[in-house]
Amino acid sequence: MFKATVYVTVKQNVLDPQGVAVQGALHSMGFNEVGKVRIGKYMELEVDATNRAEAEERVRQMCEKLLANTVVEDYRFELEG
Amino acid sequence: MFKATVYVTVKQNVLDPQGVAVQGALHSMGFNEVGKVRIGKYMELEVDATNRAEAEERVRQMCEKLLANTVVEDYRFELEG
Repeated sequence: MFKATVYVTVKQNVLDPQGVAVQGALHSMGFNEVGKVRIGKYMELEVDATNRAEAEERVRQMCEKLLANTVVEDYRFELEG
Repeated sequence: MFKATVYVTVKQNVLDPQGVAVQGALHSMGFNEVGKVRIGKYMELEVDATNRAEAEERVRQMCEKLLANTVVEDYRFELEG
């Protein structure tokens, strides 16, 4: 059993409206020292696989097919166990 | 200028319906090896502060007041720079 930690972020050149909204909210609360904010997703998955290479390949497929929208998002993941 | 990376996750004993939905979607796509899925948020913030301790304290306040709902969510963050 492997534990995969997946990070999905909006690509650098794509507008992140959620980040802009959070930045605005922080400013209006007095946190004026905050510059750029980018928001992404963080996922922890338990994956059953016979070896690390297989787990890696399967998690990559999950990211490509469901977890990330690769047109506007980047992903990276770490495997443990 | 510091870069703060904030991770917000649903507490262990709180139901994560988004994780359950993603798990179901992965199963229906043939990824039956996937066990528990937990979904959280990942944020990158640029923070202007004179020193690390100040940056840390300000980011902690942002998490407590806006970025995490501490009733049902945990947060942790890393500072760089």
